[in-house]
Amino acid sequence: MSDVIRVVLSQDEMPKAWYNLAADFPKPMLPPIDKDGHVVRPEALTAIFPENLVEQEVSTERWIPIPEPVREQLYLWRPTVLRRARNLERLLQTPAKIYFKDESGSPSGSHKSNTAVAQAYYNKVYGTKRLTTETGAGQWGSALSQACQVMGLPLRVYMVKVSFEQKPFRKLMMQTWGGECVSSPSTLTQAGRDVLAKWPDTPGSLGIAISEAIEDAVTSKDTKYTLGSVLNHVLLHQTVIGLEARAQFRKIGIYPDVIIGCAGGGSNLAGIAFPFLADKIDGSRPNLRVIAAEPTACPKLTKGEFMYDSGDVAMMTPLLPMYSLGHEYQPAAIHAGGLRYHGMAPMVSHMRRLGMIEAVALPQNECFRAAIQFANTEGLIPAPESSHAIASAIREALRAKEEGVERTILFNLSGHGILDLSGYQAFLEGKLEDYEFGAADLEKSLACTRGLPKPPPLG
Amino acid sequence: MSDVIRVVLSQDEMPKAWYNLAADFPKPMLPPIDKDGHVVRPEALTAIFPENLVEQEVSTERWIPIPEPVREQLYLWRPTVLRRARNLERLLQTPAKIYFKDESGSPSGSHKSNTAVAQAYYNKVYGTKRLTTETGAGQWGSALSQACQVMGLPLRVYMVKVSFEQKPFRKLMMQTWGGECVSSPSTLTQAGRDVLAKWPDTPGSLGIAISEAIEDAVTSKDTKYTLGSVLNHVLLHQTVIGLEARAQFRKIGIYPDVIIGCAGGGSNLAGIAFPFLADKIDGSRPNLRVIAAEPTACPKLTKGEFMYDSGDVAMMTPLLPMYSLGHEYQPAAIHAGGLRYHGMAPMVSHMRRLGMIEAVALPQNECFRAAIQFANTEGLIPAPESSHAIASAIREALRAKEEGVERTILFNLSGHGILDLSGYQAFLEGKLEDYEFGAADLEKSLACTRGLPKPPPLG
Repeated sequence: MSDVIRVVLSQDEMPKAWYNLAADFPKPMLPPIDKDGHVVRPEALTAIFPENLVEQEVSTERWIPIPEPVREQLYLWRPTVLRRARNLERLLQTPAKIYFKDESGSPSGSHKSNTAVAQAYYNKVYGTKRLTTETGAGQWGSALSQACQVMGLPLRVYMVKVSFEQKPFRKLMMQTWGGECVSSPSTLTQAGRDVLAKWPDTPGSLGIAISEAIEDAVTSKDTKYTLGSVLNHVLLHQTVIGLEARAQFRKIGIYPDVIIGCAGGGSNLAGIAFPFLADKIDGSRPNLRVIAAEPTACPKLTKGEFMYDSGDVAMMTPLLPMYSLGHEYQPAAIHAGGLRYHGMAPMVSHMRRLGMIEAVALPQNECFRAAIQFANTEGLIPAPESSHAIASAIREALRAKEEGVERTILFNLSGHGILDLSGYQAFLEGKLEDYEFGAADLEKSLACTRGLPKPPPLG
Repeated sequence: MSDVIRVVLSQDEMPKAWYNLAADFPKPMLPPIDKDGHVVRPEALTAIFPENLVEQEVSTERWIPIPEPVREQLYLWRPTVLRRARNLERLLQTPAKIYFKDESGSPSGSHKSNTAVAQAYYNKVYGTKRLTTETGAGQWGSALSQACQVMGLPLRVYMVKVSFEQKPFRKLMMQTWGGECVSSPSTLTQAGRDVLAKWPDTPGSLGIAISEAIEDAVTSKDTKYTLGSVLNHVLLHQTVIGLEARAQFRKIGIYPDVIIGCAGGGSNLAGIAFPFLADKIDGSRPNLRVIAAEPTACPKLTKGEFMYDSGDVAMMTPLLPMYSLGHEYQPAAIHAGGLRYHGMAPMVSHMRRLGMIEAVALPQNECFRAAIQFANTEGLIPAPESSHAIASAIREALRAKEEGVERTILFNLSGHGILDLSGYQAFLEGKLEDYEFGAADLEKSLACTRGLPKPPPLG
């Protein structure tokens, strides 16, 4: 079966339930707390999320059924193909087999649509009348605009300023689907006005945009907030990716040795890896490696600390147990806008803390080089975010070549980069700078977290 | 099986041969001629095309095998999905079933990649060292850039000026894949300089860009020219679309009643329709309807005349037997750049002349409205070209509703419109004008063809 370039699933073969890794944690995950160190009860979350999603957020059920109306909308682009990058393998002259899950064919052109449809659906059946959210590179805002259009919900998106300016087409995409898109920090919220007063020239950050979207939701009637990554229920919705990939590998009689995802908030990595990680946890695949590929400009897993930290700059979220660079950290304006987040999903952080996943930080020039190698061989122009997974996969493939071993590498192509071509242009013209986050940066960026409660040591 | 939203094929189910409708013509097609009325022999075409493609151009073999190296590159995105637009059906409250073949997932985001890979391959094995071409909206230039990159051939693309300016991302896409892209008319060719002298403010046209690309090819060493539509071998390569669709409909036990494609040069329409049209020709499906959807701004099938006309403005091509608006016609700068061509593929023209296909002309505002209805329901933002097929499909679906009949409509979604969002913006802001081509336009646009030899009446 080595000649199979693409492994497809029929509509009927799409998973009927999401996989919840929380059911299989070897040690329990820490709960969110408030600034006084008290555990935040699920009910408190219903101020910003509908109850049905809060239920998912705290669930430890292993399998959570995907409602039929959600499945029906996922069929618009799912199941997605598992593709072998054989042209790239040839270019690298590697004995490794490189496969990728192609999430670029969704409405938004990224994996974000998987959870957008689910979140819009759960809000709709709950009775929410309007949604708010933030977006970095614009994939999440696009995904949710499309999902809200299909489910009939108005939406306002706070888009990180640097992306808002770099990517006008993303704004147009949201508008085409009826979403309202504003540049963040904005003057529409107190959080936005405070930031503008403190840092007038800020390129914005996901942490700031989240503060604005939450404030808008809690101060508006029948309005809820949605998040495109980080939280447990978001990661849950993304497991459809890894479940499909498992079924596809089963079809060709292969089990991957290395699984790679880029890591911003953690959802695409979790989506592809968690359904496999269960096998590492139960000991049936002890050598399975899972790699989080993050940018050197925002290296929370490789340089950050495991701590309790806020999810947003204005500290409107509970404190989450996660690897973080500090909630006030404003990363350099790299083109991978979706990776410019200070923290890492608690579930991914927990797995990292338990040594179940590795992490690697990559500079953006290496990533764009890898992206162009991939585009030139495989015909698909990847998102700058996804290029981190590709660069990491190429490193692994070249290592397999050095070691002379045949190894199966799977990475998640989280999205396409067709609306990020200005980043490619800057790279091709030699204008991109790499940013190396150093010890002094860490000292400074963590300052805002020094007074927060500390997590207990791993028991 | 009515619940099937997506019908997929495995890699092994991709057609192994292209279908050549020339084998099944009820009456023979007229040959190309020169200005003196002499038949142009195939050998004359080898000045601009390699012999292996000229062979395909004149072949009457029913099945032409797809070479293994071409198949292998097509697997990067093929077989494509056949999808039912059930959300759209619900919006229209129509009893019709609307299916579409989704060609938007290729490297270029359109059907153009199907022939790009084939043409680059045949040129490579023939020994061509460099290629030239023209592009309208940029899909063809992108497709060929990617194919040339994979096959290792340098490429120069002459891009119609109005699209070059409206769509900077298309140029970046070509550059990312190593293609050189210049605005046409350019000062690099005599043809370009002549046009600039005559019409300094021209928005450009495909006819002009073709002249430039051909001149470049015939005056450069080891260089051949490639065309993205119109010619027989190009249409041939696109039949993989219709062959797949046939196999997919067979899987769900359906045969379509109406097949629709937008019509610029004719290749995506031919690609989806020809493999079905054989059944109409042989009488087994006498009621099958095939509809060419063209813009009111460039209505060669509905307003043009069947004639011998040149494929380009400088009359460098042979005279082709086709419906045309005259080779000097420069259509209004509508956003569907790929439909701004004065002539229609001879094979499609022949079918039209024989009454085997219908044609309809649609104004661009109706098409963008249809495109947004489609985007809002099916989650996919279509190319402005494809929106003509969608608008026509919606007209048919509403007619089925009026008539109270369940009818199966198939259209070709020739490409996505993610790089055409400025057109959507103009539409949403109410800034788009419709252009109605009238009798006076025709009189004027056909003037340049009055001295050309006339085709004999249909025998």
